[in-house]
Amino acid sequence: MSRINYNLKQIKAVVFDIDGVLSPSTVPMGSDGNPVRMVNIKDGYALQLAVKKGLKIAIISGGVGQSLIMRFAKLGIRDIYLGASHKTDILEVWISNNALQPEEVAYVGDDIPDFKAMLMVGLRVVPRDGVWQLKEIANYISPVDGGYGVARDLLEQILVAQGLWLDSHEAFGW
Amino acid sequence: MSRINYNLKQIKAVVFDIDGVLSPSTVPMGSDGNPVRMVNIKDGYALQLAVKKGLKIAIISGGVGQSLIMRFAKLGIRDIYLGASHKTDILEVWISNNALQPEEVAYVGDDIPDFKAMLMVGLRVVPRDGVWQLKEIANYISPVDGGYGVARDLLEQILVAQGLWLDSHEAFGW
Amino acid sequence: MSRINYNLKQIKAVVFDIDGVLSPSTVPMGSDGNPVRMVNIKDGYALQLAVKKGLKIAIISGGVGQSLIMRFAKLGIRDIYLGASHKTDILEVWISNNALQPEEVAYVGDDIPDFKAMLMVGLRVVPRDGVWQLKEIANYISPVDGGYGVARDLLEQILVAQGLWLDSHEAFGW
Amino acid sequence: MSRINYNLKQIKAVVFDIDGVLSPSTVPMGSDGNPVRMVNIKDGYALQLAVKKGLKIAIISGGVGQSLIMRFAKLGIRDIYLGASHKTDILEVWISNNALQPEEVAYVGDDIPDFKAMLMVGLRVVPRDGVWQLKEIANYISPVDGGYGVARDLLEQILVAQGLWLDSHEAFGW
Repeated sequence: MSRINYNLKQIKAVVFDIDGVLSPSTVPMGSDGNPVRMVNIKDGYALQLAVKKGLKIAIISGGVGQSLIMRFAKLGIRDIYLGASHKTDILEVWISNNALQPEEVAYVGDDIPDFKAMLMVGLRVVPRDGVWQLKEIANYISPVDGGYGVARDLLEQILVAQGLWLDSHEAFGW
Repeated sequence: MSRINYNLKQIKAVVFDIDGVLSPSTVPMGSDGNPVRMVNIKDGYALQLAVKKGLKIAIISGGVGQSLIMRFAKLGIRDIYLGASHKTDILEVWISNNALQPEEVAYVGDDIPDFKAMLMVGLRVVPRDGVWQLKEIANYISPVDGGYGVARDLLEQILVAQGLWLDSHEAFGW
Repeated sequence: MSRINYNLKQIKAVVFDIDGVLSPSTVPMGSDGNPVRMVNIKDGYALQLAVKKGLKIAIISGGVGQSLIMRFAKLGIRDIYLGASHKTDILEVWISNNALQPEEVAYVGDDIPDFKAMLMVGLRVVPRDGVWQLKEIANYISPVDGGYGVARDLLEQILVAQGLWLDSHEAFGW
Repeated sequence: MSRINYNLKQIKAVVFDIDGVLSPSTVPMGSDGNPVRMVNIKDGYALQLAVKKGLKIAIISGGVGQSLIMRFAKLGIRDIYLGASHKTDILEVWISNNALQPEEVAYVGDDIPDFKAMLMVGLRVVPRDGVWQLKEIANYISPVDGGYGVARDLLEQILVAQGLWLDSHEAFGW
């Protein structure tokens, strides 16, 4: 039984923002003035498992940085779109290329630049510390802050609903 | 409706301290013994939008560091005064050069070195974890700690009051 | 008197996971996309003391990194197994080589990859923010989050039970 | 009026531990496996002001690192003793060299290696997250965690009691 009021069995794809979602809203600043992202290891476990189980995962962020690509590629994620000043165009093409219906897609965002992209999908998820404007259009507000396990919270519920959580030997490794 | 008991429509300029305001009070120490600042991404969104909307933004800090200039310049902020041992002189000149009235200026500070500068402006804002001496002279105590969204909290309320929040396509990008 | 419902006098060995146990679940990301671990100094004090007092300490992690070996070697720990994709094989060999009985071994883990290894030992410990699946099989849920003193909490209780806590001059140094 | 039940007017010197006192207990790990300390900017303000006002300040830590010396030297602190495996010897010499009486000295520590040194002074201060063994011998438990303003909390109360807090122009700068 899920805490999310949505038929999670139909979810085939999940799209994540980075800042405020996979990484906290407040992070260290690098010597070049760019944010140094942070990662949640339990998110990482769920992301690599979700890829292995066949969920389509995409990351769309206004941020940039080679380290981001290295991090998420190691988890098996291939569709990583950085430097996205407006996210709707990228999302529209990605949904179309993957032949997805809106109700098959979940989107996790935390701030205004996610607003219009979020309206394009069926399942709209916002971290506990996301902005109120997004919470007003969300199907689900995660009980944890962005960067502190939001991806784990969502992906575990989806995989449980689909009978793919801890159903195989590989789940107990990494 | 704002939570700030002040006529926000008249605010034309906002001045920020860095440490304890745009960056948390406790931060990592670099190998040179200097603080490594942290940044809040939701603050960043509001700062770049405020610049685009025509609010005058200045940063006055006792701290130094090339990375600070790079960070804030990327957000469109040009008036960045670092290494300010006494802030009132800088603030006085800046207010004068920009032909501002005190009641048109907001100042966000967290500690004693901000005290006298804060008395020079109309709207005095202090983060939740600011020192009590500043809270005694504040018009508004933000519900979040310094570095965890104080700038966002203030700038969003100002832009909403002025009808400039989410009023255009550019607001939904970055 | 311990808060752990287990005969701590029989514990001869303690096995730790790193991410989510000795280091928090959310950590900075390095420029290579790998997590930058964090350390708790009070954990460090307890770890080096436990080694001096003769407790066998092992670290088994899916993570990698030369800095991890340097950190834990400085604390006197020699059995550091990194890059462990499946932990049960390593744990089985280590228990056998050290001629330990399961009830003499404690294991501290926080996530699914620890599940099967944890079932191999007598005392199963999970941090406050560990996943619920592990909490269901735990003897003890530590009152602190992973990376914020879990090792200290456990090791102090073990050494107290064994009369080895603060029993000598060396305990008051480092 | 102070929250500390001690005649703060007689305090002439304050000794600080670093880890768990001036820096949090949980900090990032550097590439060499050593802890990367964190600093609190409000602590920094109070430390530099206390030096200017004539309080004797010493730092005694088991830790090492050139960056620590650079950080604290910039604040005007000259008596920085690092790599101290047993702190009592250093403290005894320092107290003697400065012709101090025990009741004129405050010591802020958080863990067992501070225990015996703390017994040598009159005012014993422990952060909120210090270990219970030190809290049992403390005159004062600070309401904040180590690294999050403990030095500020103590030094402000001492300087207020001595009429040296915000009594001059220099206090409003840095």
